[in-house]
Amino acid sequence: MNYLLVHGAWHCAAHWNRVAARLTAQGHRVCALDLPGSGLNATYPESFLRNDFAALAGEPSPVAGIHLCDYRDAVVAQVRALAPHGPVTVVGHSFGGLAITLAGEAVPGLIRRLVYVSAYVPVRFATGADYGGLPEAASGVSGAVLIGDPMTTGAMRINPRDGDPAYVEKGRLAFYNDLPTVEYLRFAAYLNPDLPLAVAFDDARGTVERWGSIPRTFVRLTEDRTIPPALQDRMIAEADAVTPGNAFEVFSLPSSHSPFASMPGRLADVLAGSVVPA
Amino acid sequence: MNYLLVHGAWHCAAHWNRVAARLTAQGHRVCALDLPGSGLNATYPESFLRNDFAALAGEPSPVAGIHLCDYRDAVVAQVRALAPHGPVTVVGHSFGGLAITLAGEAVPGLIRRLVYVSAYVPVRFATGADYGGLPEAASGVSGAVLIGDPMTTGAMRINPRDGDPAYVEKGRLAFYNDLPTVEYLRFAAYLNPDLPLAVAFDDARGTVERWGSIPRTFVRLTEDRTIPPALQDRMIAEADAVTPGNAFEVFSLPSSHSPFASMPGRLADVLAGSVVPA
Repeated sequence: MNYLLVHGAWHCAAHWNRVAARLTAQGHRVCALDLPGSGLNATYPESFLRNDFAALAGEPSPVAGIHLCDYRDAVVAQVRALAPHGPVTVVGHSFGGLAITLAGEAVPGLIRRLVYVSAYVPVRFATGADYGGLPEAASGVSGAVLIGDPMTTGAMRINPRDGDPAYVEKGRLAFYNDLPTVEYLRFAAYLNPDLPLAVAFDDARGTVERWGSIPRTFVRLTEDRTIPPALQDRMIAEADAVTPGNAFEVFSLPSSHSPFASMPGRLADVLAGSVVPA
Repeated sequence: MNYLLVHGAWHCAAHWNRVAARLTAQGHRVCALDLPGSGLNATYPESFLRNDFAALAGEPSPVAGIHLCDYRDAVVAQVRALAPHGPVTVVGHSFGGLAITLAGEAVPGLIRRLVYVSAYVPVRFATGADYGGLPEAASGVSGAVLIGDPMTTGAMRINPRDGDPAYVEKGRLAFYNDLPTVEYLRFAAYLNPDLPLAVAFDDARGTVERWGSIPRTFVRLTEDRTIPPALQDRMIAEADAVTPGNAFEVFSLPSSHSPFASMPGRLADVLAGSVVPA
């Protein structure tokens, strides 16, 4: 099968590497994408590059002009590139859910399945920011890593280079709470500082007729402290309510927000369809 | 076809991403590996994590215990994982050449072709360090980025976080001299600080009977300032002299040491065999 792996906020293609290696070894064709402004497509704030962390809190983001339609277009382009070799299973993590929904809306006929790994699925409300503000999100602790004023920077900004142990621990607890610090640091080294703010505020809904026609899976993460299980469950329920004939297939994993780090083998098995829903 | 992509010193799997995406879109199965101590397998010096660059010059490397046999074993494990889906084309860049030669020596029957992208191929001398000391290497400028004393740190160390424009420019000129700075910084962000010193001093030769039986390609980079063309040509000639019936197929690209960054499409076409040797 063909897999396209789409990362979430601050992450990049490299974070999927352990999952990609396992899927490839199972015989699948796997492509992990760097979204616009991320990974090898990143542009870094000047103050970040010179390790001036006081200035970093106020510098406008060089990727502030990126919108969710740019994410969508990048995913669609890679789906089109893979599709001649067979329908594509498109996997989105976290904010990557916003991108794969819009890609599904654009080219539903090329997509075999959409897989949301604790990912945003706006249905009743329009945007990722809307869901981040719901009561079900209140127990999440990822806000503790944000620096600066998004209205000034144009980004949701973190500082992956901040070596203060208290800050490092906040990041670990929010995203990788089931990894020891030394292992978290391996993944943190590949985080980008800026999520373009518009991505959180652009409309990320699909229609029942197009997006809603694609089979879909939700990988529910029970120890997630970024998108708490209650928020995951709300998004699953909202989506299933509008497409009663095409409900989510739901898998639960006892993972933090980052199963590609904490249990890449189990995640790969779920993606490959070699385990049954639970 | 199956491709296994093996990075060079200080690099990681992520640096292959643009090439991997193109090969995957051509229908190939591609796995890029993080070698031991690299990428998601890295362990960082404490002083690097806290941005204490004065201390970084003297801190012993946490990956100093890694040897070339560990590189070999990692490559062999992934070759074995991919081999049930067909013979594997194993691609090594730069110091990755040392690893793919030893992997070829270990499992020649599972490998379709070895591709050296301006990569080390010790034949007459035993180690990467030997070749780095030859007159043909003298015009290379990558030594300018090294910090600290390898006898103290146990590593060939660079500082990818050093934002001093003069240091950044040294790195660009050594590895990515055909990229503008803003684009170089995207790739530099994924560099690891430490190459385990032993990797450069371990014997990296194969035998004529095993390694020498595998078809092989050399991607010769004419603008390379890390491994100058004269050194590439010497290694090609030495290898061809010992396996006269199985000479390198040689392609030349007008690239810096990093064609995965400067011309990923052309490199992918060479790897996929869609261009003729030149």
